[in-house]
Amino acid sequence: MPIQSPIAGLLVIGNEVLSGRTQDVNVKFLATRLGEIGIPLREVRIIPDIAEIIVATVNETRARFTYLFTTGGIGPTHDDITSECIAAAFGLPWEPHPEAWALLEARYPPGGFNSARQRMATMPRGARLIENPVSVAPGFEIGNVFVMAGVPQVMRAMFETLVPRLKGGPPVLSLTVYAVGVAEGMLAAGLGAIQIRHREVDLGSYPFYRPDGNGVAVVAKGTDRAAAEAAIVEATALMRALGGNPMPGEPSA
Amino acid sequence: MPIQSPIAGLLVIGNEVLSGRTQDVNVKFLATRLGEIGIPLREVRIIPDIAEIIVATVNETRARFTYLFTTGGIGPTHDDITSECIAAAFGLPWEPHPEAWALLEARYPPGGFNSARQRMATMPRGARLIENPVSVAPGFEIGNVFVMAGVPQVMRAMFETLVPRLKGGPPVLSLTVYAVGVAEGMLAAGLGAIQIRHREVDLGSYPFYRPDGNGVAVVAKGTDRAAAEAAIVEATALMRALGGNPMPGEPSA
Repeated sequence: MPIQSPIAGLLVIGNEVLSGRTQDVNVKFLATRLGEIGIPLREVRIIPDIAEIIVATVNETRARFTYLFTTGGIGPTHDDITSECIAAAFGLPWEPHPEAWALLEARYPPGGFNSARQRMATMPRGARLIENPVSVAPGFEIGNVFVMAGVPQVMRAMFETLVPRLKGGPPVLSLTVYAVGVAEGMLAAGLGAIQIRHREVDLGSYPFYRPDGNGVAVVAKGTDRAAAEAAIVEATALMRALGGNPMPGEPSA
Repeated sequence: MPIQSPIAGLLVIGNEVLSGRTQDVNVKFLATRLGEIGIPLREVRIIPDIAEIIVATVNETRARFTYLFTTGGIGPTHDDITSECIAAAFGLPWEPHPEAWALLEARYPPGGFNSARQRMATMPRGARLIENPVSVAPGFEIGNVFVMAGVPQVMRAMFETLVPRLKGGPPVLSLTVYAVGVAEGMLAAGLGAIQIRHREVDLGSYPFYRPDGNGVAVVAKGTDRAAAEAAIVEATALMRALGGNPMPGEPSA
């Protein structure tokens, strides 16, 4: 990808998110960190622990993004099938990974590295490990696919060990201004005009509802700081013209 | 769908989730409520405010699910393009909706129903409104697609007004047991055997990490209460055999 900017896709694999049992927090973390390192996240899919769906989705999405990340399904139990599905998607053997095997064998007391845990050391042939500083069992990288744990503290630690391997573009900056008492519908026409004057900036408008007053936040995102700042200066003036008292940053919850 | 059970897909439309600005909470709400009314959520896609992507994703997914829900992108600003994209996906004119127009015209003071706000009353021809008890501007239904707001309190209110229109199957029940001090890797073999004995139940295993002790939760989901209860009884016995003190319900955070 010498010219085109890198972009990322994310597969959240797990029935627990689709059933409502678990509130996902990995999307927000990865979206934020990927933007910071210049690999904007372009799509997320949340899919169940069903082999055919995982295989098909991996193959469809890995072709469309510079980097495809996955979270979830790499533990020791019967519903942890991400690793074997990635092997199937790539048409690769799923086999003991010597380095992962040694790490996990050393982790457990004699006899504790049972067949369930051995599955966590079984990977697509040629996988490169992603270190797990929290609980040892590693993730892995194969092709442009990065397979990480679903438990947030483990996923975050894995991602940070991975960052030096990823080639990002310019970081995506995000600037925000908000004003209580300004209605989105009054702001809309002027904001649309600002967007047209600053096409290289991605301008978003987000209403908020707080006990001390409703209002709207305007977010300018892009890789060009001067352009994002110019758009925010204009949005600030627009909010003031509409009778608001605009403040930089996000409104507190 | 007289024989096949209904299933749902969800499109979360919005750059603010993909950039990490906003923590999505709509997936968990809809996943939970849809399970309760017997329309399990099978896939979620989070996509940006880009017309071609929205149109293509709507057309791909509406063919695969009994019901397709969307959240986000129906406000008055330039980045709110969901409604016109749904019209394009269906090949329908996007035109003033008389009922929505009357609702919104009555909502604002004279002159306040400006061209930006008129966009919120412009819909695919033939759309049926989804009432918005919070902030008036309605969502809409067209074909099997249900277009709702992204702001959580508005989306939730819209969804509840919609429930009587949706034809669900038997509700998906979820039973949970957890035990501190039980390692997932020790539980795995026995749990896999329980899953094989109760194929009609979806058994999941989720490790947790708490200051007062790590452990694992086992969740049994399905539409057959007796089967889910039987699986949980066996999982409870398994946890006890592994030295745990299993407790019903979810571990507190």
